Amino acid sequence: MTASFEQFLINDPLNTYEDLDRYEKEWKPKVENYRKLLEKGIVPEYKIKLPGTIESLASQGFNPLKYLHEAKLLSDKEFEITDSTASALVGKIALGQLTSVEVFNAFAKRAVIAHQFTNCALELFTEEGLERAKYLDDYFKKNGKTIGPLHGLPVSLKEQMSYKGRVTHGSYVSKIDNVTEEHSVTTQVLENLGAVFYVRTNQPQTLMHLDSNNNFIGLSRNPYNLGLSSGGSSSGEGSIVGFGGSPLGVGTDIGGSIRAPAAYSGCHGLRPTTRRLSTRGGVSCNIGQESVPSVSGPMARSIDDIELYMKTYINQGKPWELDAWCIPLPWKEVLKPDLKDITIGVMYDDGLVKATPPIQRAMKQVVQKLTKAGGKVVEFKPIRTAEAYETINKLYSCDGNYFQRELLKGSGEPLTKLTKWCLNYGDGDKVYSVPENRKLNDIRDSLRQEYTTYLVENKIDFILCPTYNNVAPQPECVYNWSYTALFNLLDFPTLAFQTGIFQDPKLDVWDPDHQKYKYRSDLEKLECNNYDPEIFKGAPIGLQLAGRRYTDESVVAAGKAIVEILNVNLYNVE
Amino acid sequence: MTASFEQFLINDPLNTYEDLDRYEKEWKPKVENYRKLLEKGIVPEYKIKLPGTIESLASQGFNPLKYLHEAKLLSDKEFEITDSTASALVGKIALGQLTSVEVFNAFAKRAVIAHQFTNCALELFTEEGLERAKYLDDYFKKNGKTIGPLHGLPVSLKEQMSYKGRVTHGSYVSKIDNVTEEHSVTTQVLENLGAVFYVRTNQPQTLMHLDSNNNFIGLSRNPYNLGLSSGGSSSGEGSIVGFGGSPLGVGTDIGGSIRAPAAYSGCHGLRPTTRRLSTRGGVSCNIGQESVPSVSGPMARSIDDIELYMKTYINQGKPWELDAWCIPLPWKEVLKPDLKDITIGVMYDDGLVKATPPIQRAMKQVVQKLTKAGGKVVEFKPIRTAEAYETINKLYSCDGNYFQRELLKGSGEPLTKLTKWCLNYGDGDKVYSVPENRKLNDIRDSLRQEYTTYLVENKIDFILCPTYNNVAPQPECVYNWSYTALFNLLDFPTLAFQTGIFQDPKLDVWDPDHQKYKYRSDLEKLECNNYDPEIFKGAPIGLQLAGRRYTDESVVAAGKAIVEILNVNLYNVE
Repeated sequence: MTASFEQFLINDPLNTYEDLDRYEKEWKPKVENYRKLLEKGIVPEYKIKLPGTIESLASQGFNPLKYLHEAKLLSDKEFEITDSTASALVGKIALGQLTSVEVFNAFAKRAVIAHQFTNCALELFTEEGLERAKYLDDYFKKNGKTIGPLHGLPVSLKEQMSYKGRVTHGSYVSKIDNVTEEHSVTTQVLENLGAVFYVRTNQPQTLMHLDSNNNFIGLSRNPYNLGLSSGGSSSGEGSIVGFGGSPLGVGTDIGGSIRAPAAYSGCHGLRPTTRRLSTRGGVSCNIGQESVPSVSGPMARSIDDIELYMKTYINQGKPWELDAWCIPLPWKEVLKPDLKDITIGVMYDDGLVKATPPIQRAMKQVVQKLTKAGGKVVEFKPIRTAEAYETINKLYSCDGNYFQRELLKGSGEPLTKLTKWCLNYGDGDKVYSVPENRKLNDIRDSLRQEYTTYLVENKIDFILCPTYNNVAPQPECVYNWSYTALFNLLDFPTLAFQTGIFQDPKLDVWDPDHQKYKYRSDLEKLECNNYDPEIFKGAPIGLQLAGRRYTDESVVAAGKAIVEILNVNLYNVE
Repeated sequence: MTASFEQFLINDPLNTYEDLDRYEKEWKPKVENYRKLLEKGIVPEYKIKLPGTIESLASQGFNPLKYLHEAKLLSDKEFEITDSTASALVGKIALGQLTSVEVFNAFAKRAVIAHQFTNCALELFTEEGLERAKYLDDYFKKNGKTIGPLHGLPVSLKEQMSYKGRVTHGSYVSKIDNVTEEHSVTTQVLENLGAVFYVRTNQPQTLMHLDSNNNFIGLSRNPYNLGLSSGGSSSGEGSIVGFGGSPLGVGTDIGGSIRAPAAYSGCHGLRPTTRRLSTRGGVSCNIGQESVPSVSGPMARSIDDIELYMKTYINQGKPWELDAWCIPLPWKEVLKPDLKDITIGVMYDDGLVKATPPIQRAMKQVVQKLTKAGGKVVEFKPIRTAEAYETINKLYSCDGNYFQRELLKGSGEPLTKLTKWCLNYGDGDKVYSVPENRKLNDIRDSLRQEYTTYLVENKIDFILCPTYNNVAPQPECVYNWSYTALFNLLDFPTLAFQTGIFQDPKLDVWDPDHQKYKYRSDLEKLECNNYDPEIFKGAPIGLQLAGRRYTDESVVAAGKAIVEILNVNLYNVE
């Protein structure tokens, strides 16, 4: 990582990507038009008057979620609906206790407020959603049954996934005219199950930042502190799901892109094992790249809803009939375990970048509570993490950024700060040969094998560790992915879960020894120096729980047990 | 393919591989020593006097399997044992009706005869096998139960897979000193299940011929006609399993290497979907190559035994605990279907290379019998097969043969004819870049998707087609893999099954129209011109049955139904 970090510092010329004149002339008008369409999509009667300019709110570290409740921006009924779990909602709709339209309208309103505060949406299409909700209510009345297990559930979608008849650009301006004729497989599966769509959410340029900046609508903000990022690359999903503007959101993750925004923005998110869910249909620079496949997965404020999503998507959705890449591995019922029956390996530090004080405090507190509840907790010392991080960084860009370059060059759009950063991963624009790629795959496989064998032989069920060395970062200041990317390389199913603990400027200061701490790399120094207790006030703290490949069910079930012990509640936050 | 074919004809210089002086001096003595060890492994009392020199028998098209019975080279008891299915044998051993030692000795003897006729073994270690069989009998006596579901079953292993404490060379002379410390995962799983090992079998140089020539022991011969090849790359498995010297054999397949030798040599063989069984541990040029992963799989004279292998390997063997690449997808019980309930798409011709008369006759006959039995048979027109074949040929060598080159150059060994052929697949020694590799993967994925969608939408359960355009070829005369490699590219589970039909020089002549036939390529011309009715007399005819990814269970079950209709019997062949 040091090499690419230095490259970044000397501002490596990336002039083969940008063509600002052409962009201004040919593409910027299209982007402006796109923004107008987004504005048009906002239902006027749902709009609120903001309590200040976004800039001033951001500089205060304003908490819009708290404000939502304090200022009673929704009716009691709307609060009741939008602060319900997806599982409860589909249950009530199926019993006729709620209509799809009622549910939809409440979320559509909260989504608009979410967008006003956090800039989470690239596209809002409330009318289409309402029509679908009405259709589902009619269907229910006529047939006395639901269309599927997600009947009437509003679901937010990361924009990158193709949507029938709409533009899908993946935050590449060059794709701004790319009207996709079919839904992505995931979108289609969810529609088949009864979901209602109304919003497509923000994501960064290149889809390779743990943040959100792009030339379409810029940055998304954190629903707990507008001065912070909501993470990325499923940025808008973090904002909207954390804020409660969507009961269930769909992200994708190749290095942390579901888990980072979930952890930062106050919700849970699962990176499933590859090929259990589909990633077919969408815009991505990773077509044909199978060294570190991307995955899609759910984000929600309840782990029951993560399970609902996985179970219905797989068992009823049968994605393998629509996508030859998906494995017909049924979602097994795994009961929430007794903590006494599981062994958790705890990795406090990954050996690369030290965790900041709030993360350290949360890790300790969680381990204490788990131990007190009878959990078997052992230390997990990082295995070859430096090699793992170097390997995955090389794999990300071992096409010499060929596909990124094509997508970016298409419009010549200006590169954002973190785009320049990510284009320097690994060996940047150096095109690897196939033998070089295969050698990296071999290292990856040996790491997978070593972790798997270690867990099997030491009877460790899960690894508990930070999601990121810090809480939600300031905008465009997140450089390190090592805690999340490790599990992409290993292809371990990994849950980012909320601890119910929040950053506290008083408690979360570096311990006195930190001054003497000798940084292990420039990257660590950069990340640690970004921490300032006051700036991060109130940021939610999410940690990761990982299990062996294909043990997604067990990871989710253990996550349920853990948040229960921690008494996490992300609804009716006040 | 045309380009590489022409390259081959002009004898493209491959002088960067060979170093004959060095080979003669440094390596040939090691090879000679290796051969001596093989000779030493042959139990003298099992050896028979051959009815002629191998050369004369080969030139007569001698059938050693027929001779085995006619000359009564085994006792009645030995015939009874070695002409039983593996399923029957493990059943009888578990009931105490047979001992492991009795079973072992019978197969060890038949294996030696198989080797004398067909040159199937690279390594014979009867003593070790006998010791293991004794241990298992003791265990059974002491505990009153078996050690696992394959308790006492002799299993033959393709040499390429690592074997604890023995040399594993994969037919690369440079690896002749490579003593592997651990079993391959497959070998370990089988050992855990109770298997008894005694023979490691022949395979070609590079492991990339559908034939068997190498610098270790040369060619293996066909157990039905010594003038023909037993196929490859699981060449020795074809010979030994077809001859009955092993009740169950393990091969590997990246382009047809299980199915070709099974079809040619008179047994059945399954190429499972990737990652259901392990390929971890062994010598291969495909480390880190995941565009077309190799698979391992069973070969046997009974499809029940194919099922026994898959079921016990997966459900009891749990390979995912030993290999992070394996999917914990249980082997489902799928009953042998009623033919009326399945739809079979028949592909008589893949659009690339025309089938020879015996294959055409067998295809027609099988379709007739299936139709008569009530089967729904529809025509399956090849979908983009030329593109598929070009793509897979490029993918095989898209490392520019880097890993082959390293393995071959290590000793400078002379290249065999088909090695030169296979080094010219795709673009031969041209090293592809990662973006080029990814584009090929994308073509592969679009083909997988198109075939999958076609089968789902047209409600076709299986594709029936030739395994190869001809029956077992003459030695080193097999150039076309298009019928088998298609299913490697698609990653469809594919069973090569015996039809019970054999080549007949009287029946199997080209129809008069063939003279006017316009070849679609040089490859087709070459393959068709290789056909001469007299030469191929008595060659078994095996066809392929393929299903969608992960439907291995259904493919095997349908295979059982089909061979029942065809009344196939590969035991007690006279």
